[in-house]
Amino acid sequence: MEQNLQNTMALLARTPAALDALLRDLPETWTLRNEGAGTWSVLDVVGHLIHGERTDWIPRARVILEFGETRAFEPFDRWGQERESEGKSLGQLLDEFARLRAAGLSDLRAMNLQPKDLERRGRHPALGIVTLSQLLATWAAHDLTHLHQISRVMAHQYEAVVGPWHAYLGVLKCGGHSAP
Amino acid sequence: MEQNLQNTMALLARTPAALDALLRDLPETWTLRNEGAGTWSVLDVVGHLIHGERTDWIPRARVILEFGETRAFEPFDRWGQERESEGKSLGQLLDEFARLRAAGLSDLRAMNLQPKDLERRGRHPALGIVTLSQLLATWAAHDLTHLHQISRVMAHQYEAVVGPWHAYLGVLKCGGHSAP
Repeated sequence: MEQNLQNTMALLARTPAALDALLRDLPETWTLRNEGAGTWSVLDVVGHLIHGERTDWIPRARVILEFGETRAFEPFDRWGQERESEGKSLGQLLDEFARLRAAGLSDLRAMNLQPKDLERRGRHPALGIVTLSQLLATWAAHDLTHLHQISRVMAHQYEAVVGPWHAYLGVLKCGGHSAP
Repeated sequence: MEQNLQNTMALLARTPAALDALLRDLPETWTLRNEGAGTWSVLDVVGHLIHGERTDWIPRARVILEFGETRAFEPFDRWGQERESEGKSLGQLLDEFARLRAAGLSDLRAMNLQPKDLERRGRHPALGIVTLSQLLATWAAHDLTHLHQISRVMAHQYEAVVGPWHAYLGVLKCGGHSAP
């Protein structure tokens, strides 16, 4: 099953501006706090998105096109954002994410992928055989999973102050659905 | 427990631009589809946010300031977006939401609320006694619960095409946490 690549790219192109409009210069109550020990702040999430642009999506697409199933992808470092974020402000990270995303989309357009290319197969180190179509669809869905996380981390900061309305705010009941 | 009103207003001011950057002119795959019968599309959610601006937040703040606990708020119509959205494009709804939110924030600033005002009490038709502070904090958290919903509704459209990566995408495991 394939996605419509134009729809995927339309979303990928909008995420940096959406995060910028939501987060830039927002008080640190919203952006530097997390959900407790071992969890991520909004700043950590943006660092993670940057790390994905550098090491995950386009690099893995190139591995599929060059090596197919014969070479597994490098495992993705889920804590790689610690290096990406170190000593940087959220504004700097938003700038960097926008720059890297634009470059990634430019690289993707330059690949000039045809429908048969989207069926090409690669090897994920844990998930096994995947297709280029699945990789690119996941790039977009990964933006959404982290927008989902960002809204939850931010709402958590207001969990106490909403009082009885807590009962009506679904985001406060979200357990995070962490990957196993 | 009170919130910092400046932090609340900073978030409220950013939501329209964030939704605009994410959603305007996005393919309808993302914005007009829902999660199944009886659920909302992204367009429905923006209509709901508009309905809240018109009938919920500032009108209820005025009821608290004028009548205190002696008059319960009008119940909020959770399906009021059907009237708000009828015959309108998503672009028109985004424009309307931005206009109403700016007006609401202007009204809020004109109230010139002091810390003692935030402690003033009103009566919710179902939840009982609430404070003005809780109402205004909920206005911001309500934006976040619907950003959380929007990201989930959009991700749902790619549930099949991500293939094995489904296991790693928390947003696809979100049950929606609907209010009882």
